[in-house]
Amino acid sequence: MEYYFSNRVQTLKPSAIREIFKYAADPSVVSLSAGNPSPEAFPVEAIREISQRLLAENPIGVLQYSVTEGYPALRETLKKYMKAHHDIGTDDDDILITTGAQQIMDLASKALVNEGDAVITEAPSFIGSLNTFRSYNAKLVGVPMQSDGMDMDALENALKENKNAKLIYTIPNFQNPTGLTTSLEKRKRIYELAKEYGVMIIEDNPYGDLRYSGEYIPCIKSFDTEGIVIYAGSMSKVISPGMRVAYAIAPKPVFQKMVVCKQGNDVHTNVWSQMVCNEFITKYDFDAHLDMLRNKKRKKAEFMMKLMDEYLVPLGITYAPITGGLFTMCTLPEGVDMPSFCKSAVLNKVCVVPGNAFLTDESESCQLFRVNFSTPTDEQLERGIKLLAKTAKEYI
Amino acid sequence: MEYYFSNRVQTLKPSAIREIFKYAADPSVVSLSAGNPSPEAFPVEAIREISQRLLAENPIGVLQYSVTEGYPALRETLKKYMKAHHDIGTDDDDILITTGAQQIMDLASKALVNEGDAVITEAPSFIGSLNTFRSYNAKLVGVPMQSDGMDMDALENALKENKNAKLIYTIPNFQNPTGLTTSLEKRKRIYELAKEYGVMIIEDNPYGDLRYSGEYIPCIKSFDTEGIVIYAGSMSKVISPGMRVAYAIAPKPVFQKMVVCKQGNDVHTNVWSQMVCNEFITKYDFDAHLDMLRNKKRKKAEFMMKLMDEYLVPLGITYAPITGGLFTMCTLPEGVDMPSFCKSAVLNKVCVVPGNAFLTDESESCQLFRVNFSTPTDEQLERGIKLLAKTAKEYI
Repeated sequence: MEYYFSNRVQTLKPSAIREIFKYAADPSVVSLSAGNPSPEAFPVEAIREISQRLLAENPIGVLQYSVTEGYPALRETLKKYMKAHHDIGTDDDDILITTGAQQIMDLASKALVNEGDAVITEAPSFIGSLNTFRSYNAKLVGVPMQSDGMDMDALENALKENKNAKLIYTIPNFQNPTGLTTSLEKRKRIYELAKEYGVMIIEDNPYGDLRYSGEYIPCIKSFDTEGIVIYAGSMSKVISPGMRVAYAIAPKPVFQKMVVCKQGNDVHTNVWSQMVCNEFITKYDFDAHLDMLRNKKRKKAEFMMKLMDEYLVPLGITYAPITGGLFTMCTLPEGVDMPSFCKSAVLNKVCVVPGNAFLTDESESCQLFRVNFSTPTDEQLERGIKLLAKTAKEYI
Repeated sequence: MEYYFSNRVQTLKPSAIREIFKYAADPSVVSLSAGNPSPEAFPVEAIREISQRLLAENPIGVLQYSVTEGYPALRETLKKYMKAHHDIGTDDDDILITTGAQQIMDLASKALVNEGDAVITEAPSFIGSLNTFRSYNAKLVGVPMQSDGMDMDALENALKENKNAKLIYTIPNFQNPTGLTTSLEKRKRIYELAKEYGVMIIEDNPYGDLRYSGEYIPCIKSFDTEGIVIYAGSMSKVISPGMRVAYAIAPKPVFQKMVVCKQGNDVHTNVWSQMVCNEFITKYDFDAHLDMLRNKKRKKAEFMMKLMDEYLVPLGITYAPITGGLFTMCTLPEGVDMPSFCKSAVLNKVCVVPGNAFLTDESESCQLFRVNFSTPTDEQLERGIKLLAKTAKEYI
């Protein structure tokens, strides 16, 4: 049998990151390549208690089919929580529980993007989302990231030049892969430009609760009076990623189309995990849990920056100061061949993600590589950074 | 904001069945409209034990990110199980765990079907799958169901007339919505025709383990020497639908494209539920559980047929004898307006699904309605059928 695949997947490749996980699975390799939350922060005890109680008191609710929109109590909980904590959500919005936030990109693309339409993204940006847009044959238009968010002139040009742009995709807090945060001024400008050009925004905010320093910045969705922002939130970085529970807050007409698309996608999200998340947020001290997460990760981030200052910066490798999230991006000095450096690093038993994996055009030249500091232990971090320094010395 | 939705979702409507669930939620209405397995058959005790053990022994495995292909132990278990019990799977196949079997239709469509390509389905067929194909702008071509499966002449004509056909979608056992089973002869013929015309088959088999009478018939996938069949299996009808755990067994090149599509869809399926399913199948008596399910449902099916013989058949309403699964399809006498009958039934406090919901063209005239017998109690079944008879008397 000769297989004829659809146009949209002809050129789609497995995620470079998930391929790199295969190296990272070698226990002798220090992995700084993951995007995983630190496992010791999972609320295991609470989840065990809740799960037992649910299976004793409401096993049919846990195990039977549920509704596509999501477990009603969790939708209410998140609606209230996001209004109270982030001033997000109006009477014109509704909330959809999804199987991970990745599914939000899928459903929004399906509902809004025709083949050939443009999706404007930060460059670099999260490879998973880029691949979702690619899988709908969208044309990706990258807008370079600056230290305070996208280059606004480049964004406006992208909107001018792509009349068929349907979405602006942004990760405003502690962006994956750069770790950078978009300033309030630029958030407002993105919103104004989207309004002016009639383009919707996906605001992907998986790391928003993980700020370690600096001041809180309101989400773009909090000033969405026009109904043009789809907000993507997730339990993956604050409770558990394995559960695959996330949520979209979107204008009702868009919400309704996303629900119809989800019916044809996975019918509904695992209801057991939805119920566990709801119980955890409502009956446990969720804010204290978030504080604990932030404190643990802040220490890790500070330790990581200390290591990079000591071992990498003297070799000319720079990085963006970490203020939140799970990642930072390092920049190799001009003249060092980045892909070759990343390969040598793996041979030296430390694994990072080459920056071009996150570009809309992977063949572009790029001096960046992404490091994660949330998953490794302190000892692994130290060993990993020293191995990166060892690798760098072979090049510099 | 004026919203411009993609071409593919312009005409997509919410599933008529899921809309009907809203009536069915009224506790005074007897619902014969569900597609739910009977909840008293869920292995609640085993799931509670397994879940506790997993959260005690391997909480990080349960809660952390996992791989897109699925939890490796479950993939191995299902591979062996399907080979041993159904002679399904060769060295040229691989197995992908999905978030419900619905996702298999989504991933296969994304990988194989360009916009405008034809998908050939049984008519009537499962509305969820039809809507998935519609969401990829596929052209649906319905082939009429006979008591032993599709009309083979009509199938061959459909293949001749639709050179861009990419998939034949069939539910060979206890089809949803008709309850009908495709004969061995027709299964072989479908396979031969697909081979001849270079079209892939999706064999959707959620009810295969729920045979109550008659002889086992081999799956189409069991004679797939050419690598043209994607087999869709599911835990929804045999362990729990709320968990959303299903699996595709597909030729490796197709498997690989589906994995890439799943990376961009939901990254991976809820890993906790995958682990629970694996433990249940390997460490408990899964075959005894299936026997128990079959025994319970066989009794329900027999009771349902007795009720229909007593109350509906004398009024000229016929049905297809139930040999397995969850449904049967009733046929109203000529001259009775089916949509009007279904509406009157709801007013009389019994809810069934109008047959045209399952047609590739919903506006076609249709005398059918679907009834489910697995979810209601015996008392509800009796009340429901009597209410249908009462409704019918208003028309006949």
